[in-house]
Amino acid sequence: MELTTTFIELQTKGHTDIIDISDDLQKIVNGSGLREGNVTISVIGSTSGLTTIEYEPGLVNTDFPELLNKLAPYGIPYSHDNTWGDDNGAAHLRASLLGGSIVVPFLNGKLILGTWQQVIYIDFDTRPRSRKITVQVFGKYF
Amino acid sequence: MELTTTFIELQTKGHTDIIDISDDLQKIVNGSGLREGNVTISVIGSTSGLTTIEYEPGLVNTDFPELLNKLAPYGIPYSHDNTWGDDNGAAHLRASLLGGSIVVPFLNGKLILGTWQQVIYIDFDTRPRSRKITVQVFGKYF
Amino acid sequence: MELTTTFIELQTKGHTDIIDISDDLQKIVNGSGLREGNVTISVIGSTSGLTTIEYEPGLVNTDFPELLNKLAPYGIPYSHDNTWGDDNGAAHLRASLLGGSIVVPFLNGKLILGTWQQVIYIDFDTRPRSRKITVQVFGKYF
Repeated sequence: MELTTTFIELQTKGHTDIIDISDDLQKIVNGSGLREGNVTISVIGSTSGLTTIEYEPGLVNTDFPELLNKLAPYGIPYSHDNTWGDDNGAAHLRASLLGGSIVVPFLNGKLILGTWQQVIYIDFDTRPRSRKITVQVFGKYF
Repeated sequence: MELTTTFIELQTKGHTDIIDISDDLQKIVNGSGLREGNVTISVIGSTSGLTTIEYEPGLVNTDFPELLNKLAPYGIPYSHDNTWGDDNGAAHLRASLLGGSIVVPFLNGKLILGTWQQVIYIDFDTRPRSRKITVQVFGKYF
Repeated sequence: MELTTTFIELQTKGHTDIIDISDDLQKIVNGSGLREGNVTISVIGSTSGLTTIEYEPGLVNTDFPELLNKLAPYGIPYSHDNTWGDDNGAAHLRASLLGGSIVVPFLNGKLILGTWQQVIYIDFDTRPRSRKITVQVFGKYF
């Protein structure tokens, strides 16, 4: 069995920028040569999150952002913003609620996901960011 | 250490059908012969989720469905439904919000859960479905 | 590679008591002597949860509790409470929604988290509790 740690680097637009990282993950699995195991993905920082979604424009551009905006709207006052003179309280709340780690199994070298299920990284922060996401691949060669 | 990948197959009723899979998971751990490790459970598809709950009728039949219905109601228009002529936008939103993977540790061959804590699979889709869930058992024999 | 299972014990105040467990986790990693791997953290019971947050008073004392109170308020009637003559329906709903397991990678013996990102355990129950959280450290020595 083998375990390796790598990172995905991303330039985001912030403001609930939803990025499909499924291909990046599959490439990391391919590069590892492992056949059976899982990928642990984890955000670095407290204003972004991870989940899966059917990556199509209706959900990605409208429905999911609207749900998150209903839960933790941008542009209203938060105590966090008073603490730091910051404006990204909503980003922190969305991140904590959604969660920042996910584990995806693979078999025969292929991530086990539905055909219309993509792994997404969401940057909730209120400005463009350079981001790094941790990806650990663990498994066996045969 | 050993790692094995298996699948649980389920027939669901959809419409936020909440199914207790704790016994299935424990049986998979039993069958593995492993004593210490963890189980990674992961959904296949973008309209179902995983979490834990006290599996009793009040929470399962009323409280948790009502909370989810408040967050992402069925039967209202979503952009997703316009994209595909579909009617399950709410199912997608609930799935992305709840998350589709969970890791449960075990020790002495027994899942470490509370007495009133069960692992549940929830099918949010708007029709009955045949489902497959990935279960990876990882750990050591002694 | 090595895998070990330990537990963190906590006295909580309940009522969405948000406790930073990052230092406890780092100490467990230190004690393991492992250099590269991950920590699986999992709650025992159905009225508490795990996530990450920037652990500062605005978010911890006000914003995040207020969001959770909007989603599942304390002090209103739930079917769960009727089932058991209980008063903690809100605690169960928050726990199921937030999720009770998280995986955090480490490298060079150090948890990979942002500078302002802490791992938190939240006790949602409606009274003080003695809690035990499962922590599994897995990885390699070099």
